[in-house]
Amino acid sequence: MAKTIGATLNLQDIDPRSTPGFNGDKEKALALLEKLTARLDELQEQLYAEHQHRVLVILQGMDTSGKDGTIRHVFKNVDPLGVRVVAFKAPTPPELERDYLWRVHQHVPANGELVIFNRSHYEDVLVARVHNLVPPAIWSRRYDHINAFEKMLVDEGTTVLKFFLHISKEEQKKRLLERLVEADKHWKFDPQDLVERGYWEDYMEAYQDVLDKTHTQYAPWHVIPADRKWYRNLQVSRLLVEALEGLRMKYPRPKLNIPRLKSELEKM
Amino acid sequence: MAKTIGATLNLQDIDPRSTPGFNGDKEKALALLEKLTARLDELQEQLYAEHQHRVLVILQGMDTSGKDGTIRHVFKNVDPLGVRVVAFKAPTPPELERDYLWRVHQHVPANGELVIFNRSHYEDVLVARVHNLVPPAIWSRRYDHINAFEKMLVDEGTTVLKFFLHISKEEQKKRLLERLVEADKHWKFDPQDLVERGYWEDYMEAYQDVLDKTHTQYAPWHVIPADRKWYRNLQVSRLLVEALEGLRMKYPRPKLNIPRLKSELEKM
Repeated sequence: MAKTIGATLNLQDIDPRSTPGFNGDKEKALALLEKLTARLDELQEQLYAEHQHRVLVILQGMDTSGKDGTIRHVFKNVDPLGVRVVAFKAPTPPELERDYLWRVHQHVPANGELVIFNRSHYEDVLVARVHNLVPPAIWSRRYDHINAFEKMLVDEGTTVLKFFLHISKEEQKKRLLERLVEADKHWKFDPQDLVERGYWEDYMEAYQDVLDKTHTQYAPWHVIPADRKWYRNLQVSRLLVEALEGLRMKYPRPKLNIPRLKSELEKM
Repeated sequence: MAKTIGATLNLQDIDPRSTPGFNGDKEKALALLEKLTARLDELQEQLYAEHQHRVLVILQGMDTSGKDGTIRHVFKNVDPLGVRVVAFKAPTPPELERDYLWRVHQHVPANGELVIFNRSHYEDVLVARVHNLVPPAIWSRRYDHINAFEKMLVDEGTTVLKFFLHISKEEQKKRLLERLVEADKHWKFDPQDLVERGYWEDYMEAYQDVLDKTHTQYAPWHVIPADRKWYRNLQVSRLLVEALEGLRMKYPRPKLNIPRLKSELEKM
């Protein structure tokens, strides 16, 4: 069944401030980002026009790791009609009365769609594990479910792109402090973020397990060093463009009798 | 109950090429649009931050009138996280087994949300009427339902903005012909559009009835002359910015013990 790639992604070996695969500076990165986001716009249009493929982007990361920022900057040139963002928060009572994949399944992309999950079913082996919302016997079975679920999606025609935005604990401190400076940003500060920060090491362990157990051939994880926002945006854009170009999409060429349609239209 | 403003919007009196309220040229309009779309981005953030108001934008218009283009250009600077677009196409069998407002109601904006309806419940008194999908006794009752439904939404805290993108029959011909020129645009051409074009006058009559019967104080229609795309975008942006500014939103100022939070964070 689900074959994992194994322990090839070790968080401890990946420096959140590093910029693997990119030698330039911020300015160069921003210029490149402009091109990539414009290309992403074209690719999204082809995706929609072709109506053959489905693309699911899964964003995971600690508080302040930049999930929202990634969506804003990577998709800034894409038609608002062409992107659907689904944020998964704490499950509601009706959601808790079903299996944890139920609410997720409802939002998977249709043909021609690009959907972004801002958090996802992975929370059910992250927050659920760290806070003992379910016992280990329950969450430990979920990695297999998730792999099987993602395999089914991929088999049925969905491209699944999973990004873990990897920030350092120091960088999180800096970003949380920033929210306390400007009064107009206070609404973004959730005192609960401090509580969660207290579980940093537990989360890292839980994330490492996610990477070890759900990094599959068909739905691999991309660990994105995310302390530098410009690198994070650049790298996510690159991987997205690469994946979409890999679909070798073409605009459909419906069989239209152009001369007849033109003359018909001229008469109307 | 629902009080309509009456026959103040006559389509025959509104020239689709006109640019009421704007004396400048295209260049000036585009410069102004840049500012308005940036302002819209700020206002959307406040809307989200405040989490008090709900905004529903309804876009209606004939094929090629520019509903998609309006979404693309007016919301180009708004965070993809902050806009949700819902396209209403021909109802599915389960949708047809309920009242026509059922599927619409499910997608209304929540607190802090900005939702765009690309077509809407108005199709149930437009295409449904023009093609006799339901008898006159049925569709003629719907204007009252729609007014009552929109009143409830407004009473409960939703701002409803209704735009009719008004193009001329000549302009539609031009736009349909354009789609037949470039092969990579052929997928956008739907031969059904020609069939619909044959019903132009019936649609104008149905739209005029919509304007006469559902142009209410609480949810007025805006007829946007839309033969010039730059004016259409400018005018929709203006009205949106005006409506959002009218909400007099402020960033919430949660009571945070900033010094304590800072020192707590410094220690973590």
